[in-house]
Formats: sequence, structure tokens, C-alpha cells
Amino acid sequence: MSRHTPLVQQLIDALRILPGVGPKSAQRMAFSLLERNREGGLQLGAALSAAMNKVGHCQQCRTFCETALCHICTDPSRALDGIICVVGSAADQMAIEQTGQFKGRYFVLQGYLSPLDGIGPQDLGLDKLAGLLSAEGVNELILATNPTVEGDATAFYIAELCHKHQVKVSRIAQGIPVGGELEFVDGTTLSHAFSGRKAF
Amino acid sequence: MSRHTPLVQQLIDALRILPGVGPKSAQRMAFSLLERNREGGLQLGAALSAAMNKVGHCQQCRTFCETALCHICTDPSRALDGIICVVGSAADQMAIEQTGQFKGRYFVLQGYLSPLDGIGPQDLGLDKLAGLLSAEGVNELILATNPTVEGDATAFYIAELCHKHQVKVSRIAQGIPVGGELEFVDGTTLSHAFSGRKAF
Ligand SMILES: [Zn+2]
Ligand SMILES: [Zn+2]
Repeated sequence: MSRHTPLVQQLIDALRILPGVGPKSAQRMAFSLLERNREGGLQLGAALSAAMNKVGHCQQCRTFCETALCHICTDPSRALDGIICVVGSAADQMAIEQTGQFKGRYFVLQGYLSPLDGIGPQDLGLDKLAGLLSAEGVNELILATNPTVEGDATAFYIAELCHKHQVKVSRIAQGIPVGGELEFVDGTTLSHAFSGRKAF
Repeated sequence: MSRHTPLVQQLIDALRILPGVGPKSAQRMAFSLLERNREGGLQLGAALSAAMNKVGHCQQCRTFCETALCHICTDPSRALDGIICVVGSAADQMAIEQTGQFKGRYFVLQGYLSPLDGIGPQDLGLDKLAGLLSAEGVNELILATNPTVEGDATAFYIAELCHKHQVKVSRIAQGIPVGGELEFVDGTTLSHAFSGRKAF
């Protein structure tokens, strides 16, 4: 017989679309807003509507963006070295940007090739990437796709594109995480670390 | 130099008002909605606006409710035994409802007395509770406030109200949690469990 009023139940149900939010935390979130932060709840509602309706993709690199081109694609200094880093998601792009080490441009796939899910080259904008590769000033493409089956398949496909357009292609190193303890690293990673060993 | 576009940043900032959501999970939530569930994001936005604007409090028991009286206060069967259970929050009320054991009515304080935070009896609707106590048909009030300093202070205040209105007042038992292991129970709880021991 325990039940919420319709509007509270709708809010709890809607909160559960958020990743990592189960029924318990959805209820806690709903009550927290209703009890002490209705203003914040309204702001979140408005921010959601605005972002869902207005955030699109950069026409060049496909990252999330509400203008035609993102701030990286419009920054001439990021095109100087002619390097494009291919990532699977905007979150991966943010992680790389936060290192502050990479000064080139990106191409954000927003997914990986997955024939079973009906995700083909067109869905990842690989025709657009091919266009970039055939343009002037692209010297190297760095693959920073996930080390998963789908990430690997996508990396192989893009490497082929690079060969066809005679653009140098590389892939970020796989190995044991810096600061990681060997005994806790999985076998596949350890094998990769051995086969990828460098003179010391 | 890592930064989001304004609308994405606003969404991430707004998501951080949710309890338990830090910068990392706020970004994951924002990207998850933008990548694969814009429809759900819009629904969540609408559900937030509707709930924040339209959910008020039951005029009798103060629980969250978008009508004048909640479904428990309008159910005559819940008034039969004349018992009112006082809880600190709607979440506590839901937890008790989910046991399915309590068949009476509630009074939801929506907080506890806290002079330092400027929360007095009026803010918890205790004048309204006094009105209920002086009405016909109330035989017992059960205190199910948190076993904290503020919960205890509030319980004492309400017990006084009951004495004044000559209504029987009781408090839910404090002791070791069922299924809990003695060695992991804190000392205060253990003391309460001893002083509250029953013939076996
Ligand atoms: Zn771009
Ligand atoms: Zn009510």
C-alpha cells in the first residue's frame, strides 16, 4: 500500500534514467529537492530542457556543441601540428583534455562499430573522417579507442582509412596503468605490456 | 583548457545539486542523456518542473501531496484505531509504509527542532499536531523520530504536547538491528538494547 502521489512518482521514475540511479537513490533525490531545494530542481529542469533541445554535434569533430563548430575546431593553434586524435566519446575526449598534453584536434566517434546493434561507419561519421583525411594539413591520426572488441574493430577500420589516404596512423599504448600493481593487473593487459615492451 | 560548451556545463552544474552526485558522475549523467536518451532527459526536465511547482503538503499530515489531503488522510480505515505515527520525513514514512505493519495515520514533521538553524515548533507544524491531539478519536501517538540529538529533542517536545492533551504517547524501540551482529553495533545502541531488555 506504500505509494507516492502521481507527480512524485513521475519524478522518481524519470530520475531513474540517470546512470547509476536505482529506486532508492531516485526517491532520495526527489525528496531532497522537494524538501530543501525547489529552486535548484527548477533550474535542473530548465537546464535539461535547454541541453536536450539545443546541444548538437560539432560539424567537424562531432563532439557535443551548441554551435556549428566547437572551441577546439575553431582554434587555429590546435591545427598546427596536423594531428587528429580519434576517441569513442566526449567523456574520453574530456579525460585526454584534462591531461593537458595533447595539443591537436579530435574526432569523436560517439560510439563504436557494432553490426549486431546496427551501428555502421555512417553512424560514427567515418565518411566525414575520410573527408578530413583527404584534406590538406593532416599528418597523423592517433587512435585512442577503447581496448575492447568493438573499440579494436573500429580502430582497424579507421587504420584502413588512413592507409588508403596515406596518413600516418598510431595507437595509444596499452600496458599496465602507471601506479598500478602488477599482481592486480589482468592477464590480457599484462600480455600487451610484455609484447609492447621498450628498450630501457 | 578542458571545458564544456555553456549548455553542457550548465547541465553538469545543475545535476550536482542531486545528493551523492559529484563532478564525475554529473558529467557521466549529462553525456549519457545527450548520447542516448534525449527523450528521457526532456521527460525528466518536465517531471522536475511539475513536481517542484505543484507538489505541496497534505493539510492534515504534512506529507508531500499535490492535493489538499493525501491518500492516507482521506482513507477512513486508517483512522479506525486512532493512532498517529510521527516521523521526521516523507522518506521515513515510506519506509514504515513498506513494512505494511502500521495501519494508522501519520504526521510528517519535515525536519526536526533545531534552534541553531532557526527551526522551531511552528516550522514543523506542531501547532497543527496539537490541533489533531485535541480532536476526537486520537488514542495514541507513536514517536518514530530519528535516534539523534535533534530527533530526541523533538520527541520530548511532542511527548509534552501529548501529556498536555492527555493522549497516550509511545516511542518505537531502540536496540540492535534484526540480523545485525553484536560486535559491529555501536556502544550507545548496545546500552539502549540492554536497558530496553524484555522478559523472554
Ligand atoms: Zn569540433
Ligand atoms: Zn495526509
